[in-house]
Amino acid sequence: MLRGPMLYQGKSKQVFATDDPTRVVLRFTDQATAFNAKKIAEVADKGRINCAITTHLFRKVEAAGVPHHMIETVSETELLCHKVEIVPIEVVVRSRAAGGFTKRYGVTEGTTFPAPLVELFYKSDALDDPLVGADAAVLLGWARRWEIAYVTEAALAIHETLRQFWLDIGVELIDAKYEFGRFDGKLLLADELTPDGARLWEIGTGRRLDKDVFRRDLGDLGETYRALFDRVFGQKSTS
Amino acid sequence: MLRGPMLYQGKSKQVFATDDPTRVVLRFTDQATAFNAKKIAEVADKGRINCAITTHLFRKVEAAGVPHHMIETVSETELLCHKVEIVPIEVVVRSRAAGGFTKRYGVTEGTTFPAPLVELFYKSDALDDPLVGADAAVLLGWARRWEIAYVTEAALAIHETLRQFWLDIGVELIDAKYEFGRFDGKLLLADELTPDGARLWEIGTGRRLDKDVFRRDLGDLGETYRALFDRVFGQKSTS
Repeated sequence: MLRGPMLYQGKSKQVFATDDPTRVVLRFTDQATAFNAKKIAEVADKGRINCAITTHLFRKVEAAGVPHHMIETVSETELLCHKVEIVPIEVVVRSRAAGGFTKRYGVTEGTTFPAPLVELFYKSDALDDPLVGADAAVLLGWARRWEIAYVTEAALAIHETLRQFWLDIGVELIDAKYEFGRFDGKLLLADELTPDGARLWEIGTGRRLDKDVFRRDLGDLGETYRALFDRVFGQKSTS
Repeated sequence: MLRGPMLYQGKSKQVFATDDPTRVVLRFTDQATAFNAKKIAEVADKGRINCAITTHLFRKVEAAGVPHHMIETVSETELLCHKVEIVPIEVVVRSRAAGGFTKRYGVTEGTTFPAPLVELFYKSDALDDPLVGADAAVLLGWARRWEIAYVTEAALAIHETLRQFWLDIGVELIDAKYEFGRFDGKLLLADELTPDGARLWEIGTGRRLDKDVFRRDLGDLGETYRALFDRVFGQKSTS
């Protein structure tokens, strides 16, 4: 497989063309960003860790029967993926209140919901990814109605699969962001599945094992991600 | 009917108890406010005009078969109403993009929607009335699921009735906010129906006939409201 030009430079990922126009290489970088890239840092090993965790979690999603864009791992920091057209809607699933939700509605962090809550956000750095209702997303042409229905239900199914996975190793999945892409007439789970786009709290201690460590200066992000890597691939939690 | 103590002091309305614990008097004041009361002015006649327009529009809503809280007009600026428990959700119906919607999503003001769009906002001055999805509103205990379904459909029906009313006198209803209250096991359209809570554009000229004149310093609000009053109760538009 030939590596082509860079098609997209994201905040912590790069996308490259390949010699197959239907496939791209997704490269995870060591960059950490927060607050719409107002806060930036380099974190050694982050790209490798996020690539490994994403690969591992996509396999779990696959086992649960939800189609995704990953084809195979091609290096320690790179995945070969189907080249999808990203639906410009971030699907956030929340098991507990945290982050923007707590500020928006004046709800205490950690409040447990009786059922997972799905929220949709319009992907736009210029507009700071605003919350959007399904009707507005459809009216504005960002997604078709069936796509909103699909990504909502698919995100709930993925979230439940990942919640179980994390629970088994002593980690509570608080919330997570999922993105989907159009490919060959269907929708695939796309983007990444990493602690950059989810909140993960250690069961028992409540220790943050995700990018909130960086956003809120709670400790060393590299150390946190390495500990999470060890937990996923090495020793199991004793809980 | 005896006038009791003031129960609530709103931005441009006051609510008084009566000798019947199930009824209140709603008084319209001459105060105009915008941007969560950061901008305030006194506008002569505004209370009388808003009271008259609200009365007139509630009768239209009644004729369309939607129950509301108004019982009767008791003075030029006061309505006797059922004492409802307000559902803390503002239901906004939009026929065209304007106001906060255009800023939130980067959409041009005046963009026409193929169908009216309903958005829900949590009534909270402290939180600046944030947009909220139906699921979150239910999970957070602000409304029951059937209430969200009812207020959404009722607001669409009310909006269509009022859109027709305004159209007949040469005015386009761009968007409007509706509030509902719980009373005797059912939901009633509550609050007011005034140019404070709606956008009204003169057909042909696009002249603003609503509170945007005050928000955006487009002219004299008192003059605008008096012209609107004349249009509703006096000469018909020539369009």
